[in-house]
Order: sequence, then structure tokens, then C-alpha cells
Amino acid sequence: MDATGFRRLWDEIDPIGRADTGGYVRFSWSDADLALRAWFDAQAAERGMRVETDRNGNRFAWWDPEPEQVVDPAAPRRHGAVLTGSHFDSVPHGGAYDGPLGIVSAFLAVDELRRDLRATGATLKRPIAIAAFTEEEGGRFGIPCLGSRLMTGAVDADRARGLTDRDGTTLADAMRAAGADPDALGPDPERLQRIGAFVELHVEQGRALDGEGDAAVGVASAIWPHGRWRVVVTGAGDHAGTTRLPDRHDPMLTFAFAVLAARKEARLAGGLATIGRVEAVPNATNAIASQVTAWLDARAPDEGVLGEILSGFKSKVHERAARDGTHVRISRESETPVVEFDLELRDRIAALLGGAPVLPTGAGHDAGVLAAHVPTAMLFVRNPTGVSHAPGEHASDEDCAAGVDALAAVLRDLAC
Amino acid sequence: MDATGFRRLWDEIDPIGRADTGGYVRFSWSDADLALRAWFDAQAAERGMRVETDRNGNRFAWWDPEPEQVVDPAAPRRHGAVLTGSHFDSVPHGGAYDGPLGIVSAFLAVDELRRDLRATGATLKRPIAIAAFTEEEGGRFGIPCLGSRLMTGAVDADRARGLTDRDGTTLADAMRAAGADPDALGPDPERLQRIGAFVELHVEQGRALDGEGDAAVGVASAIWPHGRWRVVVTGAGDHAGTTRLPDRHDPMLTFAFAVLAARKEARLAGGLATIGRVEAVPNATNAIASQVTAWLDARAPDEGVLGEILSGFKSKVHERAARDGTHVRISRESETPVVEFDLELRDRIAALLGGAPVLPTGAGHDAGVLAAHVPTAMLFVRNPTGVSHAPGEHASDEDCAAGVDALAAVLRDLAC
Repeated sequence: MDATGFRRLWDEIDPIGRADTGGYVRFSWSDADLALRAWFDAQAAERGMRVETDRNGNRFAWWDPEPEQVVDPAAPRRHGAVLTGSHFDSVPHGGAYDGPLGIVSAFLAVDELRRDLRATGATLKRPIAIAAFTEEEGGRFGIPCLGSRLMTGAVDADRARGLTDRDGTTLADAMRAAGADPDALGPDPERLQRIGAFVELHVEQGRALDGEGDAAVGVASAIWPHGRWRVVVTGAGDHAGTTRLPDRHDPMLTFAFAVLAARKEARLAGGLATIGRVEAVPNATNAIASQVTAWLDARAPDEGVLGEILSGFKSKVHERAARDGTHVRISRESETPVVEFDLELRDRIAALLGGAPVLPTGAGHDAGVLAAHVPTAMLFVRNPTGVSHAPGEHASDEDCAAGVDALAAVLRDLAC
Repeated sequence: MDATGFRRLWDEIDPIGRADTGGYVRFSWSDADLALRAWFDAQAAERGMRVETDRNGNRFAWWDPEPEQVVDPAAPRRHGAVLTGSHFDSVPHGGAYDGPLGIVSAFLAVDELRRDLRATGATLKRPIAIAAFTEEEGGRFGIPCLGSRLMTGAVDADRARGLTDRDGTTLADAMRAAGADPDALGPDPERLQRIGAFVELHVEQGRALDGEGDAAVGVASAIWPHGRWRVVVTGAGDHAGTTRLPDRHDPMLTFAFAVLAARKEARLAGGLATIGRVEAVPNATNAIASQVTAWLDARAPDEGVLGEILSGFKSKVHERAARDGTHVRISRESETPVVEFDLELRDRIAALLGGAPVLPTGAGHDAGVLAAHVPTAMLFVRNPTGVSHAPGEHASDEDCAAGVDALAAVLRDLAC
């Protein structure tokens, strides 16, 4: 397809949830999210696709083949739906592409495939569905891929309902406020059973494609093991102007050490570790903090390295807390083992796309969650600067159009 | 007076602005502040005291002597009003006593002095006024002693109007929303001229009195020079899971180093330095921060030491920023030189109170601002734990009652 066609549909969602930072705040179940869901429904309706919202708030638009075309309705595992799509939600002030590109591209790929079927007389033999998964970023409730994890049973529904956002609103209350039913949350094996393959298209989040013979589209090999840990440092709040240094129990010192320790352990072990979120209490200029909470994000090429980073980090931070007279509690919020995408599907797609580059990623995706249950693959669209989770995230309209073509080709190959 | 009498009046304001942390959020011009101002007006009215609100939002309750008793109305400087009082506003989740104790004690001291005048037939020869200064903590708009600084001309009215709170609300808008007129802000030399002396009673913010032969009340000698600096570290926001460590420009690292550097420089120089407030953007778990802003609070026994801490801090942090590939801007928000309280007044009060201990403090006060313009003194009420700017701040009812007695004696001595 041409870049103009991509841009036309893209522009429809471009303003939704855009903040004055130039970034996007599209938290799940927020007004922006509901606007995007409404847009999803409208797109599905235009294409005569049937919309379902599952018990976990994930949305699906279905394009069903004529009954007589289905190869073997009794073998849904081999001949089940080809699922594509991604997520709408963003990290706070994130980029425009992370998530929505996969959904917009899916609708455009369906258009392309339909034109193609009309032109060639070929027929659809497996259902095609477009997914919009909920809370992929964990940007509001802290657990990434929450919608797909709930669907596959990887997260307990009770735990999910009680998760709170920064304002203390629970997921249950946020869902209720948005007209959804939190009591329905839970595993959905029957729906999962209807999916034969999942192909998620996503903006690349590094610059690997830029170095790969200038390919606009690549195929994922694996997702690094990764996780999030909450680090709560408790000290003693006091007056910054009157408390002698030796009398202090300042959690900000332990926190500061933790930031530097995370970086050092990651560097030594050969992985990534980042503290990008911090909350101090009472967060006043002339008061020693009483508590500082931070979130550690760590990733590594394999689980051994990830474990090494974590154990080094924990022991160093506990040591330092003892010196500062503070208390540290480090708890795991989520952890995802390495995901190797389906080898057969990956090689088939790479060949179909004329030898597209195959690359791993440090970023988690719903595709990583579904990969444990259905043959799953990912397409990456080139990101020239590699910037992601920030307003500067970008992909050219031409590359996005190339992504749509690639996705349409994959859908044709798998479903026709 | 007895502890019960103190407790009775204290309990009237105790619930106002109390948060579920046990601390107080009494930001200037907030609903809690307006409730406290209304309480102030009611207390003044009960005592037949005339209430004035000055152009800067500071409130005064006046007890004027009978005209024939005034010693020399043409010499207001020597025979002007004896001002007491303090402030209502708190740091976020601060203690109950810091500020309000001086106002509640002032009303009770006026009661005590009146009983005394009736009993002895003595007469008031100088007006007594009770002040409630605005935004002493800088807890909302960042500049401490804002009300007294505006009054004395130490802060420019234009700058003050444009100050913003955490939600981006300007002081001007906050005043308007509270029914006050920000256009009136500015120096008030005429009102200052009417003040002959200022005596501020305040809860002690260290444990110095506990070591001073168990005195419930002490007298201030000096306020350490102190200031606030804003530290803005700018880097490049990016994805925490896909950006290689050497490609990062992570401002959180520079910030963490700054926290530890502040402590180290203060320890080496023999002063205090604290970072208790931090704001990260976008503050997301899986994003490298693009900007981290922190506030440095530094204090020292003399200006040489304060300068040493600052210059050490600045050079170390800039050095580190160069290593991290980040940019640092350190700007002064406020700085107060050492304040030596009026020697004559201090010695007179200490003698009057039977040799009360004389002690310096690291905390700033409106008394420190007014000291440059009128003879000023401070009384401190014992704080057994020394905790301040935190929910644990405490003084016993007995000590508070002793503070009222001391303040009444000082008012009698100066005004009768």
C-alpha cells in the first residue's frame, strides 16, 4: 500500500490521548482508551467484522470465512483463527507507535487482503481476528501484558482486581467506571483454543533493523527474559534543617545507591537494568523523606544473567540500607522467562518476506505471553532512531505501509 | 496555665487538614488553610480583637491599648506593636505543631495577660498583634517565608505571582480562587513600621532543649544560613528494555549521584544537605527517564561552610553529568543569610524566663525575615524526639502550657 493510505487511517487516532509533551497518555480504561476502543468498533463495523470483548477487556474483531470454505472445523488448533493486532495503551508520555501501529496495520492489512481475494478469486479458509489487548504496558496498574496474562491464566484474577494505579484506584473500580465487569476477569481457555496462530506487528524498539541491510520489516526470534521489582525503602521522616547527619535514617540515600547499583550490576553481567520510576514520601524540599519507592526493570539475554543482576542488586542494596539505618523490601511484580518464538512460523514468514532479518528484542509483548499457548510470531517495523517509550518514537509512513504489506502477505499465507 | 486549657483550644484546630498518614497537609490558600483563617477570625472576634489581612495574605489580630495609655504615639518604632504569632501552613504530611503552636499559644497568652491586667490593675501601653503569616514552609509554592518576604520586599511580587504548585496552579490563581487579590501583592513598609518587636513562639525542631537541664522553653540565638536549590537533570527518554547501556543518557543516574554527593559534601564541610523531593518524567517503570528534577536543601553554621557545600556539590554533579551524557541546571530558589536575633531582646527574655537556655536553629522562620527590620526574638517549646516536618512531631500539653506562660510573661514585659 502507499504511505498516504497509511497516514490517512493513522491520523484518525493520532490526536487521541496526546499530551502537551508530544507524548501519549493512553492508560487502560481511561477516556483515551475508551475513545480508542470506540474507534476500533467503528473500524470493525465498516469492514463488517464482528466485535467481541472478552471477560478481561481484550477486544477482538472477527472476519469469518464462509462456512463451506473452512478446511476442518473440528480441528480448531491447526485451523483456528489467525490472530493479529496489538494494544492501544501507552506508558505515560510514550510514543505514538508502540501498540497502536499493530492495530491500525491489521485493519489496513485486512483491506489489502480483501482486495487481493477479490482480484484473484482466492478464498479465506481460516478466520482472521484483530486483537486490542488491555494494559500491555502495565503503565497504569503495574503488571505488563495484564490482558493477555489474564486470558492465559498467568495472572490471578483476584490479584488483578486489587491492583492500584498512582491515584489509588483499583483495576476493579477503573473497570466499573468504564462500564466493564471486573468480576468476570479470569482465564479464557475456550477463546484461546479458537486461535490457531498469533502474528503481532510492532514498531522496532531498537535500531537493529537500521543495521540490517536497510530492511523496513524484520521478524522476531526471541524476547529476552525480563521482570519488574518494587523496591520500598523506609526510613524516618524528619526536618531537613535540624536533624544531625548521624541521627538520620534517610531512605533517599539508599534509593540513590540502588539506582547506581542497578546500572553497575547490569553492566557487569551483560544485561539491562533501569530505575525510571520513583515516588518519595512526603516529597517535600525541607523534609527528610520517610519512604522512597522505586521500580527496577531488568532484562538479560538469558535467565542466568538476569538472576545474576538481581542477586547482585539485592545484596548490595541491603548492605547499603544497613549502613543508612533504613529498611528495604524488594518484591517481584512480574517476571517473564525467555520466549523463543515458533521456529517454523518464524522461518516461514522470513522466507515469505524475501529473507527479512530475524532479530531478538528486550521488550515484552502480548505475543510473548501467547507464545506459550499458540504458534506466535512478530513483525517489527523499522525505527530509525531506536527511541521508544518516549515522544521521539518514530517510524516513517513508507515503512509503516511496508509493514502493512508484509502483514497482509502473512495473513494471506496463513489464512487462505 | 494548665495543660487542659491548652488542649481545649488546641483540639479545635487539630483535625483541620489532617491526612490519613497522621500528618498534616495545610497548604496555603487550600481549603484547610481557609478553615484555619476562619478559626483565626473567630478567635480574634471572641477576644474583641480587630482582624486585618494585609496585601500579601498575612493575617493580623490587633489588641489596641486605650489611647490615653500609649506612651508616645509619635514614636512607633520604639513603642510600636508587640507582634507575636507564627504560620498555619505545613509541609506535605508535616507535624501538627510547626506553625500553629505559635498562633494558638498567642491567643492563650493574650487571655492570660488580660486576666493578669485585671488582677493587677496594670495597663497595656503598646498594641499587641497576633500574626498568621502565609506560606512559611514554601510547601506549596516553593519559596519559604513567602508572606513575610513579600511584606518586607525580600521577594518580588511579580515573581511570587508566577510561582506554581505541583499541579501547575500559580499563586495568583490560587489566591483568586480563595477570594484574595494577587494584584495587591508587594512590600508593606507602613505596616512594618507599626511593629515595634516580634516574638515568635515555635516548637523546637531538634532535641537541644532535652539536653539543657530539662527546660520546657528556650530562646533562639540565631538561624543558620540556609537555602534551596533546584537541580534539573535532562537526559533522553527511551525504552528500558531495548536501549543499550552505552547509548543511554539517563538523568536518574546523575540524580542518584547528586543525592549521595550532597550528603558527602555536607559531612565533609560540617553542615547539612538534603534531597527530599524528586520528580521524574515520565516516571514509568519501563522507560528511561527523560528528566529528573530534585530540590537541594542546604544549611550550615556559617556562610563560608554553606558556600563550600554548594560549590563542592555543583562541581561534582556537573562532572558526573558529563560522564552520564546528561545536562544539569542548578538554580537557587531561595537563600537566607545567617540571622542573629536581637541580642538585647534575647538576653532580656532569657533573664525574664529565669535563665532559659539560648540555642541556635537550622530551621528558617518568618522571625528570621523580620529580624532584618524589627527587634525579633523566638521562643522554642521542647520537642522530646526532635522529629519535625513529619507526623511524629510532638510537644507535651504541659510543655505547651509552659510556652504560653512564657509568651504571656514576654508580652507583659514588652507591652505593659
